[in-house]
Order: sequence, then C-alpha cells, then structure tokens
Amino acid sequence: MSLERWVRPCIYGMSGYVPGEQPAAGQRVVKLNTNENPHAVPPVVLEALAVALNEGLRLYPPPDAAPVREAAARAFGVDARGVVAGNGSDDLLTMIMRACVDPGETVAAPDPTYTLYPTLTRMQGGNYQAVPWLEDGGLPVAALAETGAKVIFVTRPNAPTGHAVPLAQVAALCRTAPGVVVLDEAYGEFADDHGLPLLAEHPNLIVTRSFSKSRSLAGLRIGLGFMSPALAEQLHKVRDSYNLDRLAQVAAVAVLEHLPAFQFAIETVKAERIRTTLSLTARGFRVAPSQANFVLAQIPAGPLSGAEWVALLKERGILVRHFPADPRLADKLRITIGTAAEMSALLAAVDWIQGQAG
Amino acid sequence: MSLERWVRPCIYGMSGYVPGEQPAAGQRVVKLNTNENPHAVPPVVLEALAVALNEGLRLYPPPDAAPVREAAARAFGVDARGVVAGNGSDDLLTMIMRACVDPGETVAAPDPTYTLYPTLTRMQGGNYQAVPWLEDGGLPVAALAETGAKVIFVTRPNAPTGHAVPLAQVAALCRTAPGVVVLDEAYGEFADDHGLPLLAEHPNLIVTRSFSKSRSLAGLRIGLGFMSPALAEQLHKVRDSYNLDRLAQVAAVAVLEHLPAFQFAIETVKAERIRTTLSLTARGFRVAPSQANFVLAQIPAGPLSGAEWVALLKERGILVRHFPADPRLADKLRITIGTAAEMSALLAAVDWIQGQAG
Repeated sequence: MSLERWVRPCIYGMSGYVPGEQPAAGQRVVKLNTNENPHAVPPVVLEALAVALNEGLRLYPPPDAAPVREAAARAFGVDARGVVAGNGSDDLLTMIMRACVDPGETVAAPDPTYTLYPTLTRMQGGNYQAVPWLEDGGLPVAALAETGAKVIFVTRPNAPTGHAVPLAQVAALCRTAPGVVVLDEAYGEFADDHGLPLLAEHPNLIVTRSFSKSRSLAGLRIGLGFMSPALAEQLHKVRDSYNLDRLAQVAAVAVLEHLPAFQFAIETVKAERIRTTLSLTARGFRVAPSQANFVLAQIPAGPLSGAEWVALLKERGILVRHFPADPRLADKLRITIGTAAEMSALLAAVDWIQGQAG
Repeated sequence: MSLERWVRPCIYGMSGYVPGEQPAAGQRVVKLNTNENPHAVPPVVLEALAVALNEGLRLYPPPDAAPVREAAARAFGVDARGVVAGNGSDDLLTMIMRACVDPGETVAAPDPTYTLYPTLTRMQGGNYQAVPWLEDGGLPVAALAETGAKVIFVTRPNAPTGHAVPLAQVAALCRTAPGVVVLDEAYGEFADDHGLPLLAEHPNLIVTRSFSKSRSLAGLRIGLGFMSPALAEQLHKVRDSYNLDRLAQVAAVAVLEHLPAFQFAIETVKAERIRTTLSLTARGFRVAPSQANFVLAQIPAGPLSGAEWVALLKERGILVRHFPADPRLADKLRITIGTAAEMSALLAAVDWIQGQAG
C-alpha cells in the first residue's frame, strides 16, 4: 500500500469537512444543529414530484438544468444565461473554486464564517486568508482586497454570527477586489434585503442561493448561482454534466413557480427568532441580532463550558452546533430556529440545566 | 470585464464536455444516442420513492450515503468502508481526479475511450496521454504503465467500441502502474464478467459503477466506487458533503436490495444487441462484437458519410451518437440498444436510407 504516493500531498495531509451531526434514523431529537427549516415543503412541490415519478427516470436530465434556470430567471427577473444550478449551493462553491483558483493562489473571507471555504481552498491547492470582521461587524473591505485573492467569499447573513453586512460594503468590495466576489446568500431569504440588485453593476460578483433553508429542501440538494452570462459560461465548463437530477429539477421549478407559498414559513421563523433571542437573553445568554434562521448565543457566565452546555442539551434530546476549535466561538452555541414547540423545548431544557447547575 | 484575469488559464482556454443531444420535452424521437436503458425502472423502486416523498425532504440526507454504502456492501459482498457513492459515476471520476492529480501530473487511458477523461484532466491542470489500444483490442499495459500516470482509466466494456479487455490484462496493469487504476464499469452489467474480484489483490484499483444504464436510473444520478477503505477515506475528503440527495439514496438502496428485478431487462438488451449486430451486418455495416448496451457500427461503403447517416437518421426521428472529430470514429455510429420496437424502427430507417441512396 503506497497511499501517500497515489494521493496528492495537499489532500493526504488534510482532514475532510465535518458537517453537523445527523441523528440515526428513528432517533427522536430536537434537531437545531444544521439550520434546516422546521416547516414542511408545500404540497405543490410534492405533487410535482409525484407526477415526475410516473414520467420515468430512465432518461438523463437536462444537462444544464435549463428548466430550472429559466424558472429562476422568471422568478428573479434576471437573464437565464447568467444562472447556474448546483447540486446544493456547495456544488456551486466547488465550481467557482475549480474555475478560478490555481494552486498557490489566494482565497479570502472575513472571519469567522462558513468553515467549508478553507477546506475547498486546500483541495484546490490554494492559500486561505481569514481576515477578521471589523470591530462593528462590518466587512473589512480594504484588507480583503489587499489579499489579492482570486475569490473572496462573503456569507450574508453570515454563519455562524447571523449578522448581515450592509450591501454598500459588498458593492465597495466588488469595486476594489482584484478577483471574483462570492456573496453566499444561503440564508438570504431570512434577511431584510439581498444582493441580487448588485449584479447589474458588478461583473465580478456571484450571488449564490440554497434551497436547503428557506425552501425546506435540504434533502434534495438544490442551489442557484447568479452572475454575468460570461462568467456562467466558464462555470458550466467545470460543472459535472447532469449535476442536477430529474427530481431535483422538477422540485426546483415547482418552488420557483410558487415562491409566495414559502413566505408564511419564513415569517414564522423570523418571529420565532425574535422570541428565542429575547428568551435566551432573559436567561443570561448574550445573543447577537440575527438575520438568518439561527442565532449565535454566548453562554451565561457560570460553571458550565460551551462543550458542557452542548452535552447537557444533547442529554435532553436537543442538538445544537458548537465550534470548539475556534477560541472566539468556544463559549457560543449556534442554535437553529425550529418550530415554536421546538424552541420551547430548548428553553425548558435551558431552564432545567440552569436549575441543576444553580 | 476582465474574465481572463478572474478565471484559471486552463479553464478559460478549454471547451466544456458536450454530452449527447437531449431532445426537447414532448419531442417524439427514438433516442439511441446516450446509452440509456429503454426499460422502465421496476415498480419496487418507484414505490420506495413515493414513500420517501411523504417522509419529508426538509432534512439533509446522510452526508456519506451510509445506507447506500451498506446496501452495496451486502449486495456485492464487500466492505462498506470501501464504497463511495457519487452523484452519478461522473462525480466519482471527479473525486478521483481531485484526490490524486496535481497540476502537471499525467493521466492516461487507452484510446479511443470516454471523452470526459481528457476534460477532467484539463480541469485538474494535468497532462492527458491517450495510448492506442493494441491491434487486437487488448490493453496496452506496458505503454500505459510507462506514462507514469497518477491515474489510468480503463473503461470496460469500453465506450464507444463496446469491447471488454480480458480481466487478466487489467490485473497486469494494476501490478505495474505507478498510480491508481480506475476500472470504469459504467456498462459492466451488460458484460460477461466484471472486475470486483480484482479488488482484493490490488490496493491501487478503483472500480466504478453507474445506475444510469443497467438500473434505468439515468435521471437520478447514482454511481458507486469500490476500493480499499484507505483509498475511500481519501476520496471522502474531496467529496461534496451531502453529494447524494435523499431520493437518490432511497432509490439506490431499493435497487441494491432488488438486483434480480433488473436481470430480465439486462438479458433483453443483450438479446437485442445480438439481433441488432446481425441485422446491421446484413445491411453492410461492420459491427464490432459488443459487451455493452450499445454497438459501434462502421457505415457501409457508399456515397453517404458518417455525418450524412446521422442527419438522415435524425430526419427519420432516430438519434444516434457520432464522434466526427476523431478520424478513426468519423465513419462509425454509436447506437444504443433500445427496445425491440426501437431497433426495428432503426433498421427500417436504415432500409429507407439505403433505398433512397441506392
């Protein structure tokens, strides 16, 4: 066995990305750790899928997901040639990296943010530069541009902090960055505004969206990228042909043709986000205002560490996300906004833990 | 716009892979151009999918497709830790390239073969070496090993020729190759034998399978890779987390638990392959013996070029695949084996064209 001879050194030496824990089938938990939507997908999407099952799956799907791209163009008032569909928005992030980053080149992002970016950078043989957010949470525009990065990722709203930088700062970054700026709007539908209007003025901007959060379709893997048609043409070259399967394409079109059907669930999440923020604050947590479908909550001063909070919540059947490797995040929990009942269960568990600890 | 500054030179300068033509929705054609299975997926798979629709799609799928890998391990008598699932087998080919090939390194394959390999190599910044098949169709073992390639692809049965090299030659290549050998068995279920038994002796071997041909599921994008657990661990690092969606995982498990349900369709394709070979031969074509679900047919001597045959068949509503850029293939048509009715329609069209031309 000569594994280290067969595999690239940059892969052999790295660890893979570790997604949030998935409970085993049948395990009963309140799952607040991977930012899924607690509300079911509207019946109109399931009906479209049921019809598609009967139309046969033996033929390849449209290779460039043209029906999805055209539906997205109609829904968002953009040019279908500037839309690329991905097998989840992670697939789009991979395409961007493979299209733009040569070994030794730089990729940058404000920090902390989505931990997949450095992993994708290492796969591409690039150098990742993490640039701290400004003191006020603002985008470090000059410092990011000065890295000379081929790709700069800006998650908005950001994970795990939940805050959304002003769009004017994103526009300023597009003007000064020497490479491509990726505005990752995986949580964009839960925010007060979004970046699609910036596309017209900034040919180096790519906006990505996910159907895993606001569209309740994490199980189907659908993402969209919006950009100039010229940039889209380059991304298509590194896209797996047939990257989006027939059923995902059918579901994506049904979603895009029925966007208002998702609005009630989105508003419910936003309302529950406010209640959760206030309720955790009342229990001694420090919760940053969030524009996403999760909150980042700093644990109360006391005997329990972040890891102990996570373990105790898990004992009570509640999964939350924790990033112990980052000292700025070790005393914080990232808590997905679930249903009202799920958030009440969380608060009851917090009360129980605080009762025991006190 | 500074596209050439934002995009890697190796991507900017290349063309994307062009898959076979997909007819528009509602267009009535006999589709013999992309090697799909003419037989519908067995009802047991559709029933499993229908149940899964009702179980909700809002949660992420198992990130490493563990249920699929375990079902594959049971079905094929291998270690689940040595199975990697892909969003189609193309996804597996991409993972192998990203795990093993650094820029400037060599990738090799016998030639002609699947035209995606050179495209994947260019994306990775590698050098592609095409080594001609031996005169008798055998594997050029020594010449392939001497390229020093990090990855050598052997498609078996090969596309577009349809022939399957002896497994002993594949074993010899594994022993002498300095890197990884990928035995691409996308068409493996239509052949007389297959390469999984070689895995035990050759830690540098990866066998890939597709559900797009023998499993009638091209629309769902499912592929499997079989290898040593140690090599699988490296591939998982470059795999998109959640690369296989919930429905594809459900379908894959249903297939793997009901493999005998597919055997009748496979045998029907094999029988129709013999009839098509004999019938085209009787009409002046030279058809190489095929072990796949297609035949490569050299057109009869006469006034019509390969491109003219393709165009005339298309006028009669029949799509076949043509590779005009390769001089060895310009006078040949790659014809998928469809149903008996579809192959009769092909033969009737051939008769009509020959009647007009004569």
